[in-house]
Amino acid sequence: MQAKSTRPVNDVRCRWQHWLATMTLLGLSMPSIGQAPAAPAQGGPALSPSVAALAKAVSSDPLTMGWMQGFPPPAAKLVMHTPESVVYPRNRWAFSHIRELVPTATVWRGNGPASPLPRAERDIGSIPFTDVDGTRRTFADMLTLTYTDGILVMHKGKVIYERYFGALNDHTPHIAMSVTKSLVGTLAAMLVADGKLDPAAPVTRYLPELADTAYGDATVREVMDMTVGVHYSEDYANPKAEIWDYARAGGMLARPAGYSGPPNFYDFLRTLRKEGDHNQVFAYKTVNAEVLAWILRRVSGQSLAQLLSARIWQPMGAEQDAYFTVDSIGTESGGGGFNTTLRDLARFGELMRNDGRFNGRQIIPTSVVADIRRGGDRAKFANSTSGPALPGWSYRDMWWVTHDSHGVYQAFGVYGQRIYIDPKAELTIVRYASHPVASNAANNPITFRAFDALAQSLMK
Amino acid sequence: MQAKSTRPVNDVRCRWQHWLATMTLLGLSMPSIGQAPAAPAQGGPALSPSVAALAKAVSSDPLTMGWMQGFPPPAAKLVMHTPESVVYPRNRWAFSHIRELVPTATVWRGNGPASPLPRAERDIGSIPFTDVDGTRRTFADMLTLTYTDGILVMHKGKVIYERYFGALNDHTPHIAMSVTKSLVGTLAAMLVADGKLDPAAPVTRYLPELADTAYGDATVREVMDMTVGVHYSEDYANPKAEIWDYARAGGMLARPAGYSGPPNFYDFLRTLRKEGDHNQVFAYKTVNAEVLAWILRRVSGQSLAQLLSARIWQPMGAEQDAYFTVDSIGTESGGGGFNTTLRDLARFGELMRNDGRFNGRQIIPTSVVADIRRGGDRAKFANSTSGPALPGWSYRDMWWVTHDSHGVYQAFGVYGQRIYIDPKAELTIVRYASHPVASNAANNPITFRAFDALAQSLMK
Repeated sequence: MQAKSTRPVNDVRCRWQHWLATMTLLGLSMPSIGQAPAAPAQGGPALSPSVAALAKAVSSDPLTMGWMQGFPPPAAKLVMHTPESVVYPRNRWAFSHIRELVPTATVWRGNGPASPLPRAERDIGSIPFTDVDGTRRTFADMLTLTYTDGILVMHKGKVIYERYFGALNDHTPHIAMSVTKSLVGTLAAMLVADGKLDPAAPVTRYLPELADTAYGDATVREVMDMTVGVHYSEDYANPKAEIWDYARAGGMLARPAGYSGPPNFYDFLRTLRKEGDHNQVFAYKTVNAEVLAWILRRVSGQSLAQLLSARIWQPMGAEQDAYFTVDSIGTESGGGGFNTTLRDLARFGELMRNDGRFNGRQIIPTSVVADIRRGGDRAKFANSTSGPALPGWSYRDMWWVTHDSHGVYQAFGVYGQRIYIDPKAELTIVRYASHPVASNAANNPITFRAFDALAQSLMK
Repeated sequence: MQAKSTRPVNDVRCRWQHWLATMTLLGLSMPSIGQAPAAPAQGGPALSPSVAALAKAVSSDPLTMGWMQGFPPPAAKLVMHTPESVVYPRNRWAFSHIRELVPTATVWRGNGPASPLPRAERDIGSIPFTDVDGTRRTFADMLTLTYTDGILVMHKGKVIYERYFGALNDHTPHIAMSVTKSLVGTLAAMLVADGKLDPAAPVTRYLPELADTAYGDATVREVMDMTVGVHYSEDYANPKAEIWDYARAGGMLARPAGYSGPPNFYDFLRTLRKEGDHNQVFAYKTVNAEVLAWILRRVSGQSLAQLLSARIWQPMGAEQDAYFTVDSIGTESGGGGFNTTLRDLARFGELMRNDGRFNGRQIIPTSVVADIRRGGDRAKFANSTSGPALPGWSYRDMWWVTHDSHGVYQAFGVYGQRIYIDPKAELTIVRYASHPVASNAANNPITFRAFDALAQSLMK
């Protein structure tokens, strides 16, 4: 049954939510994680912004909202695979139930025991910090204000804090959104280390199908570090942006009657045209991750799901199977379709923090982690749209590298998904969230302050 | 990309395959497992039927056929969620990849270790038997001729034989088709044993929504044993049969533009009208399993996937997560949408054979298994369309009970899916297959002779 909307279809806010919904379906990031979001207008009585934000976060808990409860759920409480049903606040349920909405491919954990996650729990919820507006807050406040669905903190290899909210629990996968890209970039760097993939080679050595596209004269490295000059816009506010063609091609955005566009990811990638020069500036575009995923399949002879299972998920002793969303011909979304539990995302984060070693094995070559930590070209990042908000950062192998004094590097996904690795503090944080605003610019300020306060506290 | 058919759309054979395809999607059984199938005409040179059948089975191996190989696969080798792509021979790939085609809900195995499946392997492939046409065959011949994707045989609690073919392996779920119903019936009988479900109660005690339907004056027992008088045809050959309404409602058959029929399983069940009297004759209709699944959800407060996980899959120590296909509002198909590995299906079969005890625990009450083994009303079965082909049988709690000298009872799914439990021979056989013909009547004769020969051999 279709949930009936009470909002008029032509309402601007409704259309904005429609765009957001599609991004949700696709697991895409905003063009820049540093870009300031357009804040939705607040209705209702005049509360202080701080109190109103807390109230909104608490009241949108998916269990409180009653999404998908009952057999059948009431029409007004349905969350389905429609653009409308996976925007805030329904996203608070949907992000933990993606496989119930779309086809998916398993990332098998293997048959072995899960690797141990030793515990040394302490309540870090009361750790204080000062928010950007001068408000004194706690780490727990940050979780509420960023619409956190779950968080797992590891310090010196032990779980010190693990909390779940709303629709998430310790064994259910949650969509990782663009955190997916960092997995794809890591796998690519592993194939480079194996000598199977040459980053200096033209993309067409592996994908001759892309000869007549923007990728016809790009190198693999330019794809891995997103410095490709490609005519492709992820501007949510423009219904003509290529993001919508991509969405329809991937089968995640419903196609109009008579649709004759590209029927899958592969065919869409073949339509991309060059814009500007390669290797000039960092330009965050999800299609690069899809091209890289295609290269990985061609080079390894495995699907992305098989490759990730064989090279990382099985060796690291994952606790649960993970999965990718797939298009109409079974192609995984390497741009944003990965779903896993927070515990297994934490295992992956720890694997990275430990220079590729975990579960008693060297799973990722040390050189791969070193390459990521060393980072990408900072000048090309500074000149990008992300540059002003994230000064001094770079992007390498599809990871965000801060170049700060702790050597922090991160995987980002829209709506608050995060892997945060602080080598100096021996700290790994993984968080899943379902923020009303896609752009991480909406939560970065408070997230960073809370994470930094935690790191400082742990290093005392 | 749509795989282009070279067959004209109006071709009768094409339409027949379209209907079969939909049944595949739905996991439905033919009206009677005893009904003789309409054999497709054989083309090509005149081989002996026996040689031609073997050749067809071998040449349709999905790896040989090359389905879904390559990145992307060639258009002619695609298997997608379209009616055409999951009929024979594409079903040989699709049945092991259902989650890549449609949305699904996890049946969680839990976090514990998998229960042991002790092994005492022997090659039973050479065990001989005489086919109905007098041909001397072996057990291994039967596997080929029934288009077996995998088989696991347990004798006295040990795995004596385990083989996989084509697209299946030991850790990948395969669709169980109407074997699903036997799980639903078992869960219902467990809730009866718990005192939570009264089989003598009217259906409307639990589902007042069905007051104005065929189920308005039916009892729960009549649903459990399929003696409901309901106007509902599963006649594949009739495009006006209610099966198509059911398929469109479940979202598994593509809806025409402007579709205004029931949008999900629940709403479809509300449309069913009475035909004849209840409790007169066995009448195998998939909708009864969907009604029973609804009752289970209402009584337990859990989804079917949650209930099966909590009551059976976790306690028995399943090795892999299983899953159900779901409709557009997340409703599991209790009629035919269950997918699990052969190993876990074998665990479930052994659990039944051992009177509900497995993995060191009494998981299903002994009384439940005894009730199933005692069987249903044999006269009502004899008078059904299934009666003539399966003399002396009955149907109880959605299990097929032979009442033979070994006390054999079985779960059946179209295209050859099977749980075969022979208590006297201490034998459990589970088989997955992708036969060109849906009806088990197409494989029962050879299957039964091979299974019987195996039992006799093991009892020597």
